[in-house]
Order: sequence, then C-alpha cells, then structure tokens
Amino acid sequence: MSDGKEAFDAAVIGSGMAGLTAAIYCRRYMLKVVVFAREPGGVITESALVENWPGEKAISGVELMEKVRAHAEGLEAHFIFGEVESIAGRAGGFAVHLSGGAVETASAVILASGSDRRKLGVPGEKEFAGRGVSYCATCDAFFFRGKKVAVVGGSDSAAASAELLSRTAGKVYILYRRDRLRAEPVRVERLERAENVEIRYRTKVVEILGGDAVTGVKLDDSTTLAVDGVFVEIGFEPANRLARGLGVKLDEAGFIEVDEGCRTSVPGVYAAGDVTTGTNRMRQLVTAAAEGAIAAESLFEDLKQLPLQF
Amino acid sequence: MSDGKEAFDAAVIGSGMAGLTAAIYCRRYMLKVVVFAREPGGVITESALVENWPGEKAISGVELMEKVRAHAEGLEAHFIFGEVESIAGRAGGFAVHLSGGAVETASAVILASGSDRRKLGVPGEKEFAGRGVSYCATCDAFFFRGKKVAVVGGSDSAAASAELLSRTAGKVYILYRRDRLRAEPVRVERLERAENVEIRYRTKVVEILGGDAVTGVKLDDSTTLAVDGVFVEIGFEPANRLARGLGVKLDEAGFIEVDEGCRTSVPGVYAAGDVTTGTNRMRQLVTAAAEGAIAAESLFEDLKQLPLQF
Repeated sequence: MSDGKEAFDAAVIGSGMAGLTAAIYCRRYMLKVVVFAREPGGVITESALVENWPGEKAISGVELMEKVRAHAEGLEAHFIFGEVESIAGRAGGFAVHLSGGAVETASAVILASGSDRRKLGVPGEKEFAGRGVSYCATCDAFFFRGKKVAVVGGSDSAAASAELLSRTAGKVYILYRRDRLRAEPVRVERLERAENVEIRYRTKVVEILGGDAVTGVKLDDSTTLAVDGVFVEIGFEPANRLARGLGVKLDEAGFIEVDEGCRTSVPGVYAAGDVTTGTNRMRQLVTAAAEGAIAAESLFEDLKQLPLQF
Repeated sequence: MSDGKEAFDAAVIGSGMAGLTAAIYCRRYMLKVVVFAREPGGVITESALVENWPGEKAISGVELMEKVRAHAEGLEAHFIFGEVESIAGRAGGFAVHLSGGAVETASAVILASGSDRRKLGVPGEKEFAGRGVSYCATCDAFFFRGKKVAVVGGSDSAAASAELLSRTAGKVYILYRRDRLRAEPVRVERLERAENVEIRYRTKVVEILGGDAVTGVKLDDSTTLAVDGVFVEIGFEPANRLARGLGVKLDEAGFIEVDEGCRTSVPGVYAAGDVTTGTNRMRQLVTAAAEGAIAAESLFEDLKQLPLQF
C-alpha cells in the first residue's frame, strides 16, 4: 500500500494490548507495520493475575501479553525496541525518531502509548505491587473477598472503586488527604451509609507495610491501619508526550480525543487503548483490543484514499 | 444488588463473545447474572479457524467459545438453554419468557443476540461453509493468498471485501445481480482499475460446487466459474426480535442504537455485540467483547441508582 517512499504503512507506538491488536489487524489488512516498544506488554504486565480476558480464567499479565506478542510476530509485524523521541510529518509520511538517533518512516501512525496509574510514591508501594497493592478495583476486587482493604484517593473513580470493593471485601477504608470526596453526591451518600465502609478524611498514607504481602498502612498521624489490600486510586497519567508533539487534540485530563473510528484530530494519526477517550473510558484489556482493531481498520480505509498510494 | 424481588440482577440474551463477556464482567461486579443461550457460542462457532482473537494464533470458533463459556461458568454465571420468546417489564423488573413457558426475572437486560450474515440460499452454500464459503473477508482473506475467489454482492461492504481480497488473492471476481455497484464511487473506480479484479454484473450464483472444498460456482447463465473461495457479502440480519418487543430504538437497517455506554433507548436495557450500532460497527470478536464489558459496567452503575436496591 506504500508508494515505496515510506518503509512502513503503519507505525504503532506501544506494545500493550491496544498496540499489539492494532498490529495484528494491520497485518490482516496486509499492511507493513512496525511496533515501537519501550518494553514488551504494556502496563498489564504488572498484573500478577489477569482474570478478565475472556477465555483465560487465570493468567499472568506477562504470560498473556507474551501470547499476544507471539501472535503479532507470527503475522510478521516488525518490532523495534527503544524509546521514541519524537514523531513528525503528515498523513502519508511520518518520521519516527528514536532516542538512539535512528529514524523510521511510515505512512500513518497509531498511538497506543497507554497510561500509567499515578503512584503514591511511598515506601512499600513498589515492593508490594501485585501482592496487595493494586491500581484497578475492577481487575482485582474479586481477590479480596471478605478481606480488609484501603482505597487511597477521593475522586469519583476512587469512590466507585470503594463501592465495588464494599461488595466483595469485609471492610473498606477510604483514605483521603482532603476533607470531602470529589465524587457524585449519590455515591458519597451510599458510601457513608454502607456498613462496611469507613471514610477517613485529612489522612495520608506514608508507608505500605507487609511481609510476603501487604499487612497494613502507616498513616501520617503515625498510627497503623491493618489491611490486606491497598487500592491506589489517584488518577491516570496518559502517556501523551508524542501526541502533544504531533499537535493532537487532548481532553482536559490529557487523554487523546478520538472519534468512533479511533481517528485523532490530526489526519494520519490514530490512537487506541488507555491513552484515549474512547470505549467509554473503560480502560480494560477488551476495550484496548477493540480500539486497536478499530484504529487499524480506519487507517487501512484512509490510506487507500491517499492519491499516490494503493 | 437485587432487592430480592427479582431472581437475577442481569439477564443476558445470547452466548456469543458479547454475551459471555458481559456475563464475565457482571460476575466481576458480583451481580447475579443469567445467560440465555439458544446454542452455545454464537455465530463465531461457524468459523473453522479464528486468527483474529489476540493471543490465539489459530483456534477454532468452537474451541475459543468453549474457553470463554468455561470462564463465565467458572465465575458462576448461570446458564439457561432455550429460546426466549419475549421480554417485558421496565428498569428494575423484567420478565424473560421462554418458549417452553418458563419465566425468569431480572432487574436489567443485556441484549447480545448477534446478527446473522444473510445467506444466498443456494445448493452447496451450507455444505461448504468454512471450506471455501465465507461471510467475512476481514476474518478469512488471509487464507486465500494467491487463490481465486468470488465476492457475491454489490454493497459498499461487498466492495470493501473485494478490495481487501484483491490484496491477498490472485484473482477476485465480483458477482452482482444488478448492473451497478452500490459502493462509494472512489472504491468502485479502484476496483475497476485493479488488474486482478473482474466485475460481472447481472450475474447470479445458483450453486456452489466442490469436493472436499469449494472448486467453483455455477452461474445463472449455466456457465461455471472456477474459484477456491466464495465470499457471500449480501448483508447482515440483526437478531432484533426481542429488542423490537421491548420498544428499543433501532437504526434503519434494524441494528440496536446504543450510546457510548451500550445503553439502548429503553432504561434498564443494554445491548452489545453484532446486534448494535456500537464500536464503529466493526463486528469483530474484540469489539463484541468490549461492548459486553461496557454494557455490564453501565448496568452495574445504573442498578445502584434504583431506589429500592443496593
């Protein structure tokens, strides 16, 4: 489909579920595709146990993404490992600059750079990730049936996580540094009414404690709270640096605005997965995969319209 | 979450990828969910070989859906096999009537009844399904590299399939009963220009011929055309009977209109998968799964708003 000027039809930035599914679909459309990966697998590889990928009752994030990567490689998607420094160009011709100085060219770009859950940055957080520290209640609430958990944060999303956890866990603490939850009033009311939920305002977590797994949190008043799980719900940071460089329109939180076809505001630039405003902002593996497929289809349709190509 | 009046929180109609993923997500939200299945697995079980489910390089449709069903059952989704005759009620209380006379109740409904590819209805079509007869070029074009194929139909979707096939197959015939393609002009022009595409107007397929697999098609002028594959692209028929009974808004082609959250026009009724207008109408396994997850999340959020519940 390339007119021979560009090395690839599509450059996919990111190798999480969205990026790899985009690559798989590009190859099904017989497009030459290159995936730029900082490290293989995306944020899901931090999950010790994935239970919400249909067909896999229980699989590690690393193992699942290894299967998806092998799938994409089997279809002859090309992989380049390294840090992308910048992308420049316009529909039909983009240059992807790597931090080592190398440059690759592609007719179109799919941004699937994901988002990172914002971290507390306290001792124990990194150590116990996947062993009691979680960043996704929808993913992990199920593992804490009957247990004590703490939700750190006060946003609507933190409150939603607390509500979900209150249905599985025995006891849910909400620990929030301010004096009022920034959540829908109806949700706040329900949480205040719930028998197994306790909200502690003006409270900061200063350390996460544990042995093999989490056993508690240390608070800024020097007391300790015994919990089996800590859900850190202080927001997402979309990995939008390359999108900003391309002049792609972002929403106020920094996520890439996409239409139904995963097209961004810049022709020739598509986006998929956790970095976008798409699929109802659900940010799950299945929605990332769907966006990857949709972005690849739109790219294929649009590339055919370019005068010099096809 | 039910107030005890309804047997289930959620009734899912259909057990394809959308329905089963909806059930998996309902269970992750700890909702009591029942899946009504005519037969297990949905339309994908007609596919001998699935290559576009991320992580599975090559799996039969039956085998994939068996894994997804086992996943949902492992999470204690309830299954009822049989034909749903009608659904009545409103948000908070629906009655699902089975053709045998049984009635089940649920607070909310997810319609994931799928759509059937319209069939030609000629001898050989059923016999060679999956052995040369296909209804999805995006799914199967890859298997016909260098081969001769016929696309039956003249819609934009048929033309898109022919374009895709022209990139993989050696020769593509478009067989259409009318005298002009009903496709985007730019697409028609490209097809007319393509060296390996031949459009035959005023042509009907009267029989599909073959031995172990397809070897050709018999046309209405009694000639035979040698092909290895036949792509039947004469549209979809959304399984919308229950939706119509519920008064759910459909688009002009009969698909269920959904918003970003997979909500239909009727409160308490959600829809997911091939039966909807969602996820850019891509109708792939990954988009069906995404819609199932989104519908379950919306249902969970909405159920909590009902005064008597939660």
